[in-house]
Amino acid sequence: MTDQIQLDQLCINTIRTLSIDAVEKAQSGHPGTPMGAAPTVYCLWQRFLRYDPEHPEWPNRDRFVLSAGHASALLYSLLYLSGVKATSPSYEVTDRLAVTLDDLKNFRQAGSRCTGHPEYGWTSGVETTTGPLGQGVAVSVGMAIAERWLAATYNRPSYELFEHNVYALCSDGDMMEGISSEAASLAGHLKLANLCWIYDDNNISIEGSTDITFTEDVAARFAAYGWHVVRVDDANDLPLLTHAYETFLDTHDRPTLIIVRSHIGYGAPHKQDRREAHGEALGPEEVRLAKEFFGWDPDSQFYVPEGVSAHFKAQIGSRGATKHATWEQLFAAYHSQYPDLAKQIDCLQLRGLPENWDSALPTFPTDQKGIATRDSSGKVLNTIAAQMPWLLGGAADLAPSTKTELKDTIYGNFQAPRQDDNEGGNYGGRNFHFGVREHAMCAIASGMSLSKLRPYAASFFIFTDYCRAAIRLSAMMQIPVIYIWTHDSISLGEDGPTHQPIEHLASLRAMPGMIVLRPADANEVVEAWRVIMQLKDRPVCLVLTRQAIATLDRTKYAHANGVSCGAYVLADAPDHKPDVLLLATGSEVSLCVTAYEQLKSEGIKARVVSMPSWELFENQSREYRDSVLPPEITARVAVEEASTFGWERYTGFDGAILGLRTFGLSAPTKIVEQHFGFESAHVVAAAKAQITRSALKK
Amino acid sequence: MTDQIQLDQLCINTIRTLSIDAVEKAQSGHPGTPMGAAPTVYCLWQRFLRYDPEHPEWPNRDRFVLSAGHASALLYSLLYLSGVKATSPSYEVTDRLAVTLDDLKNFRQAGSRCTGHPEYGWTSGVETTTGPLGQGVAVSVGMAIAERWLAATYNRPSYELFEHNVYALCSDGDMMEGISSEAASLAGHLKLANLCWIYDDNNISIEGSTDITFTEDVAARFAAYGWHVVRVDDANDLPLLTHAYETFLDTHDRPTLIIVRSHIGYGAPHKQDRREAHGEALGPEEVRLAKEFFGWDPDSQFYVPEGVSAHFKAQIGSRGATKHATWEQLFAAYHSQYPDLAKQIDCLQLRGLPENWDSALPTFPTDQKGIATRDSSGKVLNTIAAQMPWLLGGAADLAPSTKTELKDTIYGNFQAPRQDDNEGGNYGGRNFHFGVREHAMCAIASGMSLSKLRPYAASFFIFTDYCRAAIRLSAMMQIPVIYIWTHDSISLGEDGPTHQPIEHLASLRAMPGMIVLRPADANEVVEAWRVIMQLKDRPVCLVLTRQAIATLDRTKYAHANGVSCGAYVLADAPDHKPDVLLLATGSEVSLCVTAYEQLKSEGIKARVVSMPSWELFENQSREYRDSVLPPEITARVAVEEASTFGWERYTGFDGAILGLRTFGLSAPTKIVEQHFGFESAHVVAAAKAQITRSALKK
Repeated sequence: MTDQIQLDQLCINTIRTLSIDAVEKAQSGHPGTPMGAAPTVYCLWQRFLRYDPEHPEWPNRDRFVLSAGHASALLYSLLYLSGVKATSPSYEVTDRLAVTLDDLKNFRQAGSRCTGHPEYGWTSGVETTTGPLGQGVAVSVGMAIAERWLAATYNRPSYELFEHNVYALCSDGDMMEGISSEAASLAGHLKLANLCWIYDDNNISIEGSTDITFTEDVAARFAAYGWHVVRVDDANDLPLLTHAYETFLDTHDRPTLIIVRSHIGYGAPHKQDRREAHGEALGPEEVRLAKEFFGWDPDSQFYVPEGVSAHFKAQIGSRGATKHATWEQLFAAYHSQYPDLAKQIDCLQLRGLPENWDSALPTFPTDQKGIATRDSSGKVLNTIAAQMPWLLGGAADLAPSTKTELKDTIYGNFQAPRQDDNEGGNYGGRNFHFGVREHAMCAIASGMSLSKLRPYAASFFIFTDYCRAAIRLSAMMQIPVIYIWTHDSISLGEDGPTHQPIEHLASLRAMPGMIVLRPADANEVVEAWRVIMQLKDRPVCLVLTRQAIATLDRTKYAHANGVSCGAYVLADAPDHKPDVLLLATGSEVSLCVTAYEQLKSEGIKARVVSMPSWELFENQSREYRDSVLPPEITARVAVEEASTFGWERYTGFDGAILGLRTFGLSAPTKIVEQHFGFESAHVVAAAKAQITRSALKK
Repeated sequence: MTDQIQLDQLCINTIRTLSIDAVEKAQSGHPGTPMGAAPTVYCLWQRFLRYDPEHPEWPNRDRFVLSAGHASALLYSLLYLSGVKATSPSYEVTDRLAVTLDDLKNFRQAGSRCTGHPEYGWTSGVETTTGPLGQGVAVSVGMAIAERWLAATYNRPSYELFEHNVYALCSDGDMMEGISSEAASLAGHLKLANLCWIYDDNNISIEGSTDITFTEDVAARFAAYGWHVVRVDDANDLPLLTHAYETFLDTHDRPTLIIVRSHIGYGAPHKQDRREAHGEALGPEEVRLAKEFFGWDPDSQFYVPEGVSAHFKAQIGSRGATKHATWEQLFAAYHSQYPDLAKQIDCLQLRGLPENWDSALPTFPTDQKGIATRDSSGKVLNTIAAQMPWLLGGAADLAPSTKTELKDTIYGNFQAPRQDDNEGGNYGGRNFHFGVREHAMCAIASGMSLSKLRPYAASFFIFTDYCRAAIRLSAMMQIPVIYIWTHDSISLGEDGPTHQPIEHLASLRAMPGMIVLRPADANEVVEAWRVIMQLKDRPVCLVLTRQAIATLDRTKYAHANGVSCGAYVLADAPDHKPDVLLLATGSEVSLCVTAYEQLKSEGIKARVVSMPSWELFENQSREYRDSVLPPEITARVAVEEASTFGWERYTGFDGAILGLRTFGLSAPTKIVEQHFGFESAHVVAAAKAQITRSALKK
């Protein structure tokens, strides 16, 4: 063996043994995949990855996504050995290492950067949070899309500012999950030649050999999606791996899947190729034997042989530093030549907003007949998009219904450029056709957001059921994805119970980090968008009606800017001492306003509280909250065309909740509303009953 | 044209015009797919479907699943023209039609059997609720599995009791959804030769041509899954369609996909092949023109030409009646020859339980160290399974972790039989390897349940996020699927926030029709299973710990059979007048018992209420509920390692909730619990604070 080959082997075995030791010390984790896939990832990082360990936030870096997130020890070992630096929450590089040897020694312990699964934002160098299978590969499609869009939008002759690739390492489990099929189908359609999935094909999943459940021809399936498929029959064959990556780089008209045959638990004599290598520590004796196999001192722990760190520095480090330095020079020149474009890039990288982003926000006139909030939202979206090029997105085959299309033809469709393009598509397009693929859509939106675009993803509210796993990760990653969900209640009418959300508001309000916004009329929609656009670290669900709802008279009732507080007093008793509180969100606010006027005509003092976002409201001071919902007023009626679940927070034991406890009904909107009692007369009756009860109690 | 061909054409156009008229009258619905796919489904029903319209519950009928549920008018027209009879909720046939002409005229109106999307249980002849795309095809896999299992288990020489096929009509949208990929991959692996998907390939989805997002090679993809793929280039070509169905019937070693090229809105001169034909009424002028094209009087409405109904009677009706009568004779003879097996079939068809199903349920001895509820559940499951052959299921590649394997080797694995079978698989096997395909798993379980087996489906609780759409439909269909979710809280430890459920209990409690059961120890697990097995019309989520939890001393505390009431007093003040209520579920009950003992030692009177199921509790009488949670006691502490969301129902404005408002942490269990304050000292402190507050208020 030449020195070079020996050194490569030494580095690969260092990755393996660090991973083994991390899992063994924690007595928890997944040693098998790091042992099997170490050469695959090593070859990529050392010979190909365009990545500057000193600047892990460099915008034109290649992305490496560990979709097989359970193999986290593999990634942490690489981050450590490559000397990747930690960055601050505002993306500034620090002197600290992203992962220290102490972190590795404290794998899966509180405080360590080496958490059980890779967590974006907690560990620098982790490009996206992974663990739930299929998510990483789908996110990687979003990152590849972002690169194509950035390149098409900002590159200029002699200024190839964006030209990076996106790699994702995935497992049998990733391949089995439906989300990966959705994402791969779309990536093939979009001909994302900058995308490379590396399938660590080790034939083992938790219940045993993949023979018991997964015998499809993965290569043929991906060819059917329009991918280029390359095989590497032995993960330990670096020249073959190198050739495969080169083939990817030479493929310019489609994404590439590299299928690498590997051995889970490689080097562990009794556990290799067995499911026991997957998800538990090897045990001390097996660790010793594996280390002997690798030529290690069996008593060593967390051992990094001499020359290993230097070799990483000499390869990925040196290559990355050079490329990054060149890029910085290029970007400096670009700043001079294209200052406006450069300013946009700077702005989006910091998740900023362009000046005047809100300059054209409309005000909607009072209108009893009104407008569906999906329609008013579509108008508002278009006014903001006109000011902000990197605000972009689409729907899961429902854009005509969700009203999320950017109308001006200059925006175009995001499509692979082609000669005979009837759709006018190109990679600079801002309208996305995600297809009937809600789950992939949401993960892709996260990938776009992680590359600092400002994406929105839209569908019917009911279909959040298809994509909760992806939505949840965006909340965990604290990235500002905008979800637009229309057809938000039983009032969608004839489509019936299969399409009528009931429990979905409660389900999303219960999710940590998520903001749910359900505006009550067109002007609350405007204010909702004002809130949304200023979010930097939280995703939001904007929940909108299918049916027209009244645009309230804001000269008579409070200004809609109360939306920013989450809840506000919309209509009140003249003396601000109401006898009953009417609480509602979205389309049911108008119902409460009608009831309020009826009660007023009968001399009964009510207050209407519009509560578009519980999360924003709960972020307000106790003083503000008590001013809106005075604790001493226990006569309360909450009205929402959704599960009553959770409303007791605001109604207490004794309040009334007009909501739903069953599935919906297929019938025209008005009939459905009558059937379930969503009529102002019921609100009035409930309010009176509440006042009586409350008085009796006193 | 021969008379026969003319008659076929007349029938097909009757289906088309009935569908057009239903949508037009409702001014709501989807005419395009019924118009395009009418001959495809007509050919199947009239020439192949083994179905007795007089007995739509005949166990050996072929199943037809309309996965493209938006084309409901197509199915309703067929049910009406075939004269399918309505059945009662207890599966008895009535004299009424499942769908009348009046129902069709009241399409999408309250009370009509012709709801917007097909609803199982509401409209006889609807085999499963569909509408959310991909669900129907995945359910069809479960039905095909059930047939294979029933045949392998109950057929005997000369007694082919079960030999039916399962057909599903699917759309572009079905094909794009990830769940269909998961289901198709598994169906191919299992070589389900009794399964036929019919892909209505009309190149149009809501945003326009499928060219804009869906350009994969579907045929090649399904071949990669191991399916036989057949093409019909023109949906209007009945001989070609007939040949395709015959090819399916002649294919004995794999499932079949028939790709039928059709024209959405066929016959409507201005809307055919356009997205406008998909989801809205054609409009009066276009309806007239289409009817002229079909040779109809353009002024006719809901017109059924002479001879049409008779032709349905002569084909599907006559064939079905004959086959059904033969089968009933066969089953009568089977009853004589195999009385025990026949009794099982009768029992399962009525969703009954075998005698002695609970005869071997264990009682777990008091044990402070205890046992994880996933482990005790695994033991209980095995004792019931020993008595009940049609209790069967598996996990999404997590059986070793969810403890859902049926241990006795006689049960075997459900696999396609093969010569060189190392896994001992056969279609009579009861252990299912669903692969890492949670979404398909849940829909498949529904399909198995719809064929009257008693399936369970298992995974980690966090992965309910992957399969909510399928879970929701099981609740809507009111079928008793058993979901087993383990690793139910942050106490799973090191796997960290990506794997730690937070909002999932609230999310499922908010779902109508679902029962959530989170038992507090091994003996509550026993009682939970006792409840579960007696459910006939509700699915249940059994939520279980990864970690060991104490088995409570039931001589000291109340018997665990309180589980059947959803909540019960586990430990109380000696005078039954506690000063504070401690409410908890699952693993946190023990924490409250420890706190209770601590408080008791300090002379403070507390009551511990174990609340394994809110839904069961809310079904109890007001009297019972008030006896458990006396309204006058407002000093309350709720403890649950989950989102606090929803607990205010039981704590009111003033109670304390020890829960979570953030994502979890990757660290060992004890550290995680400490970090988030799940320690008895915190419960004690909160209880004391509650007593003080409550006293001050009085």
